[in-house]
Amino acid sequence: MKIGLDVLGGDYAPNSTIQGAIEAQQNLQNDQRLVLFGDEEKTRELISNAGGDVSAFDYVHAPEEIGMHEHPTKAITQKPNSSISKGFEFLKDGKIDSFASAGNTGAMLVGSMFSVKTIPGILRPAIATNVPQLKGGTAVMLDVGANADCKPEMLNHFAILGSFYAEHVLRIEKPRVGLINIGEEAEKGNLLTTSTYPLLKANEKINFIGNAEGRDLFSDHADVFVCDGYTGNVILKLAESFYVVTLKKGFKDEFFDRFNYEQFGGSPVLGVNAPVVIGHGISTPTAIKNMVLQSRDMISSKFIERIKSAIK
Amino acid sequence: MKIGLDVLGGDYAPNSTIQGAIEAQQNLQNDQRLVLFGDEEKTRELISNAGGDVSAFDYVHAPEEIGMHEHPTKAITQKPNSSISKGFEFLKDGKIDSFASAGNTGAMLVGSMFSVKTIPGILRPAIATNVPQLKGGTAVMLDVGANADCKPEMLNHFAILGSFYAEHVLRIEKPRVGLINIGEEAEKGNLLTTSTYPLLKANEKINFIGNAEGRDLFSDHADVFVCDGYTGNVILKLAESFYVVTLKKGFKDEFFDRFNYEQFGGSPVLGVNAPVVIGHGISTPTAIKNMVLQSRDMISSKFIERIKSAIK
Repeated sequence: MKIGLDVLGGDYAPNSTIQGAIEAQQNLQNDQRLVLFGDEEKTRELISNAGGDVSAFDYVHAPEEIGMHEHPTKAITQKPNSSISKGFEFLKDGKIDSFASAGNTGAMLVGSMFSVKTIPGILRPAIATNVPQLKGGTAVMLDVGANADCKPEMLNHFAILGSFYAEHVLRIEKPRVGLINIGEEAEKGNLLTTSTYPLLKANEKINFIGNAEGRDLFSDHADVFVCDGYTGNVILKLAESFYVVTLKKGFKDEFFDRFNYEQFGGSPVLGVNAPVVIGHGISTPTAIKNMVLQSRDMISSKFIERIKSAIK
Repeated sequence: MKIGLDVLGGDYAPNSTIQGAIEAQQNLQNDQRLVLFGDEEKTRELISNAGGDVSAFDYVHAPEEIGMHEHPTKAITQKPNSSISKGFEFLKDGKIDSFASAGNTGAMLVGSMFSVKTIPGILRPAIATNVPQLKGGTAVMLDVGANADCKPEMLNHFAILGSFYAEHVLRIEKPRVGLINIGEEAEKGNLLTTSTYPLLKANEKINFIGNAEGRDLFSDHADVFVCDGYTGNVILKLAESFYVVTLKKGFKDEFFDRFNYEQFGGSPVLGVNAPVVIGHGISTPTAIKNMVLQSRDMISSKFIERIKSAIK
């Protein structure tokens, strides 16, 4: 198994990515190899300086960087030697089994769709995020930003993608799917959600339990929360800001601790033909480490193969 | 000034509404009279039993009740002697200057639109809610549920309504308007928000400061947050659930305390030709009291007259 990691991506790269890579590698088995994309010589030097074992990693020379505010499509096409472009080239060619970066989110999304491409039968990939539950455990919410405007059939696909991720990567049995909506009744909602409800209800590949309101997000109501990318992104950033407030106020609590993105690693891109993970821009070494372990779990669960068989 | 209050509305009515009315009345001036809608004889008896001054109130006999789960339009038309129908009849005829109820939200919305009607030039009324700010003070967000699907021009009107409410009722000078969106840049967002942005920018009646992300909601970023009713309702219920979590966890804090709906009174219906306030179903006496005082402030600020002049 080869796990690709962009060494140049993230606000604190390369120091945080190098340190995270070293910590992750110590948690990998012998047949799980971390492949680092960045300036090869510099990466080796940094690994060595940080006290890591240089021979424990594979290296791909990709010295160019895609900045956080560069236009995704332009950057991907005009910078073939960037760590992100190179990563997706290797992913497409099967030289690595997953690719993760805390760099430009748009470039990661565009890169996935250009290289390994969307799974046949899936309209559009989505970005997912973990949602901690009050009673313990974790749910998954999608889309959180890949598609600002969605059609009902897209949300139906997100429900399938989220369910397979929840079942095989988060290891939740028969994950319950909730549609983010306003009101509990089937007929409540906006045009999108009222049109999506019957599709989810008729979908035999998922365990649809009905609507989920804003108040249900942390209350062990569902394991997969489905919504359009505009709504999901607003929810995600609002929840993050609440977590930041509890931190500032000095409230220590196990539940709020689980809002810490570091614990999750990153946000998986679901619906493309290979495991891809996007890290938070401010990823620390712990976040990078967990993103690598999350990539490993996504590979070993074979959930993408399972999705493909299911939607054939 | 005559302030109308539905005595039968709310999960804890009539005990909480009677108690709230008595407490509110003690805060009113001589020329501010509370008009109670409900079973007149029973209301007088309850006021007396609760130690209130029966002669300090006006009464309108409206013994029928509209249940929380009744169909709004049907209930309003088929129950002319209900406290909500009667309230709007009196509001329309100018016999009261405002009407407030903690009863059926839909009936309150439909009642407003059927009786006092939408302000000419405004496409649709919206329900607003207070949003506490970390640095103190309060912002207003709308729509939080009256319109699940919105057009750009509707959001543009909500911006005007919210601005006038913020300026004249919340007494915020030159209130800053933020468009709830994903990303800071003008071109970011979904079809609705990208089409709304230029309208808000060109609107000389408001002080538009650009997009507001989920993380900006409590951070003193804006005074008026504009969004469609689906998004606003999801945000509102998510924020409420966070507040409930902090309560359950025993976190005491002045900021979180201000999430307590009791402090605000209720949610104003903005965009109709008279002050209308909808209370939370679980309204306590304190919430009812504050809803009455909020009604009074809405009347005395004359903000509806100001809106009418502004959009002529």
